[in-house]
Amino acid sequence: MNYQGKRWRTIWRNEDDVKGSIGVIDQRLLPHEFKTLTLGTMEECAEAIRNMTVRGAPLIGATAAYGVCFALRDDPTDAGLSSAYKILHETRPTAINLKWALDQMQADVAQLPPAKRLQTAYARAAELCDEDVAVCEAIGRNGLQIFRDILAKKKPGSRLNVLTHCNAGWLACVDWGTALAPIFMAHDTGLPVHVWVDETRPRNQGASLTAWELNQHGVPHTVVVDNAGGHLMQHGLVDLCIVGTDRTTAQGDVCNKIGTYLKALAARDNGVPFYVALPSSTIDWTIRDGLKEIPIEERSAREVTHLRGKTAQGTFAEIQVTPDGSPACNYGFDVTPSRLITALITEKGACAASDEGLKKLFGR
Amino acid sequence: MNYQGKRWRTIWRNEDDVKGSIGVIDQRLLPHEFKTLTLGTMEECAEAIRNMTVRGAPLIGATAAYGVCFALRDDPTDAGLSSAYKILHETRPTAINLKWALDQMQADVAQLPPAKRLQTAYARAAELCDEDVAVCEAIGRNGLQIFRDILAKKKPGSRLNVLTHCNAGWLACVDWGTALAPIFMAHDTGLPVHVWVDETRPRNQGASLTAWELNQHGVPHTVVVDNAGGHLMQHGLVDLCIVGTDRTTAQGDVCNKIGTYLKALAARDNGVPFYVALPSSTIDWTIRDGLKEIPIEERSAREVTHLRGKTAQGTFAEIQVTPDGSPACNYGFDVTPSRLITALITEKGACAASDEGLKKLFGR
Repeated sequence: MNYQGKRWRTIWRNEDDVKGSIGVIDQRLLPHEFKTLTLGTMEECAEAIRNMTVRGAPLIGATAAYGVCFALRDDPTDAGLSSAYKILHETRPTAINLKWALDQMQADVAQLPPAKRLQTAYARAAELCDEDVAVCEAIGRNGLQIFRDILAKKKPGSRLNVLTHCNAGWLACVDWGTALAPIFMAHDTGLPVHVWVDETRPRNQGASLTAWELNQHGVPHTVVVDNAGGHLMQHGLVDLCIVGTDRTTAQGDVCNKIGTYLKALAARDNGVPFYVALPSSTIDWTIRDGLKEIPIEERSAREVTHLRGKTAQGTFAEIQVTPDGSPACNYGFDVTPSRLITALITEKGACAASDEGLKKLFGR
Repeated sequence: MNYQGKRWRTIWRNEDDVKGSIGVIDQRLLPHEFKTLTLGTMEECAEAIRNMTVRGAPLIGATAAYGVCFALRDDPTDAGLSSAYKILHETRPTAINLKWALDQMQADVAQLPPAKRLQTAYARAAELCDEDVAVCEAIGRNGLQIFRDILAKKKPGSRLNVLTHCNAGWLACVDWGTALAPIFMAHDTGLPVHVWVDETRPRNQGASLTAWELNQHGVPHTVVVDNAGGHLMQHGLVDLCIVGTDRTTAQGDVCNKIGTYLKALAARDNGVPFYVALPSSTIDWTIRDGLKEIPIEERSAREVTHLRGKTAQGTFAEIQVTPDGSPACNYGFDVTPSRLITALITEKGACAASDEGLKKLFGR
């Protein structure tokens, strides 16, 4: 992804650091400030995931992988490995590929004698990052074909209006993003794409992160409140919706940021196609019914009652929007049933959001 | 409505003021500060409507009625009357009963000689306020019966969970409110009612005004982001939705705060009844298809990009949530088609949201 004309990833090795630290972007300061941070211990990685310095399912996985490296550097025994696994795994409950990344790391190093673990761990973590980039790029290519097909049906000279919710972009991954990958590619190849960016309360990942990414990359976009999407679709202003997912079930139900389900309902009511972009690492083959089987993370009510942003003076301030004494509650995700999803777009191609569709594509 | 144990209306004559001014609550400071303002000229009334010191369809109408009084006090001629009508009418484009209130005032005073107009105008404005209170009270009684019926079908000891969007409460009217009237009455008569309060971005009328009203009145409630309603309904946590409307068409389509349509879709998808509470003055008998025929007010993008609230120090601050350079757009309302509405609750009773339902109830 481009930031000020330079190509960036969201996570990188500090090659000149003999202790092997990594660099990440402090996403809590975006979109108002771009600042990188050095993470050099397992606990620093865990805390960065917990406090959302880094967020987005794939990036959390990559950060956790390096957390395992740092733990092994300090204690390469089985006890050190299993303690790191536990601490890192408990940082965020919903995203399935945090566990997936930890399992990949563990499988590769546990079989080795302790003295040989560190080098393999670093290599595997770097590989996980490169794999994520390749997967997102493939998702982008597969999505781009769908974008082209939809645009081809519009009047010549029309722009393609895409609505997205939350941030499933570069910042959520190592590069490209999932839902945003086809958008970046469409823009780069000259397709006239315009993005409606759902603000995505309560944490405003759309208004802050997605808008920032699109702005940096030069993709035309407009920020709207989460309430606006239905109206836009009723008036023919949306050609397709595309979102990411934190967990996808074997029958194609999708657990994504709270509010995704409402947009899927509006899409169906207005005949707008609704796509979900995902790396296959977010598929949880062990469950089918997302509504019944996926536990939904409840986050702090303070994310609803208070907001942080930039003042006219350029400083940060936090404001309270609710009355003193009014309680709030904060479910982080909702489940969009597969019946509302036009197709899942994965690194292996697009498929129906169903047992059959997923099984066929992944040969299971 | 109760504020600090005292009974209040949202608009009142300052009886000791020989120039005949009125008092209103400065709703821009709620929920953090309760402050009343004196309005003594037509222009002050128009500005209070324009800058949303007062808001809510019925309260705008009442304020405009007193604006006509002040105009006639200063210039009781036909020219004075028609100039006041024009200025007040242009303050807000969507709410139909602003025009309705102005038409009522004009019809009553235009036939009189200029010297007799002022006294009649004051009397008619006071009457409009009293009528609004009576109408809202009737809506409350009619809604209460529906609440009782739904609660009766739940397990004994259950609470009734009501979801509402925006503010259709006391503060939007002269007293009681429309959608909130049955809620206040239910609470007052001992029904165990709990309200999910949609934050209602971008202006947060739910998080600020509805939560404040319920808090002052002691009604159990929880503020949620606008994204949360679908999840709540999927999990059986909502027994009914009830909202207000700024304009209702002859076939029962409803134009209300942006995002109402998304909640109506979620209600239908989950078998939750969806009610709209309205005084008959919001019915626009001249139009049928709300989607095609109601112009939607576009408001300043700044309401999306910036938010105001209270800091930890108790001062007010405004913060920017979007990146510099990211555009935003701000549709104020959306249309909920009648097919998604279980019933309209009016001062004359409840009816189907349809031509037939409305015609039968209002004998047209």
